[in-house]
Amino acid sequence: MITHGSRRKKSNGEIIALACKIETHHLNQYPIIHAGFLEIASPQIPESIKQCIDDRATSIVLLPYFLNSGRHVIEDTPAFINETQKNFPNVPITVTSHIGGSTEMINLLIKTVNDVKDID
Amino acid sequence: MITHGSRRKKSNGEIIALACKIETHHLNQYPIIHAGFLEIASPQIPESIKQCIDDRATSIVLLPYFLNSGRHVIEDTPAFINETQKNFPNVPITVTSHIGGSTEMINLLIKTVNDVKDID
Repeated sequence: MITHGSRRKKSNGEIIALACKIETHHLNQYPIIHAGFLEIASPQIPESIKQCIDDRATSIVLLPYFLNSGRHVIEDTPAFINETQKNFPNVPITVTSHIGGSTEMINLLIKTVNDVKDID
Repeated sequence: MITHGSRRKKSNGEIIALACKIETHHLNQYPIIHAGFLEIASPQIPESIKQCIDDRATSIVLLPYFLNSGRHVIEDTPAFINETQKNFPNVPITVTSHIGGSTEMINLLIKTVNDVKDID
């Protein structure tokens, strides 16, 4: 799970917490989860990929936690993958859609609004 | 649906497209949808709220399309609501969780990863 990184520590903590939550609730399906930041915060993306490999991951899926298909998604992420893949040719690295481009995002938006309407 | 706004036109277009998609697919449930931007892009948030009211909305739900609970979510959004609510006291405005704070976000993350794993 990779994202931008913020000067605001609490925002970075939210990302780490979300990664931990996936690890806790989906341990059988995805036993090794690490969050990586593009800039400002640590661990940075190459380091988080290295952590997965140190934890004996045999394949890695990168999930770009970005809302838009900006430069970080279309340029920086593939560049990170290519660079890292050279160092670890035996661990295939694939990448998902950025989260904002997920086909299910529309359902999350509707559910989020419904949650408020239910409380009203 | 409110978000930051980007210098990259395509990113802003993605937000408008998502709002249109909600309007098309959930017309009965939410007949009036407008996207509003905090800065850089148009329409800006107060204008998008005004558009809802011009379209005869009787209540408004604001959905902050942000991943983190940063300043834009915890300070700017309530300030916009308070300011706008003064001008339109008869149209109640409520606000949802920011999208990154939705309880369902974890499921979207898992589904997004599963989609890639299914293709492999």
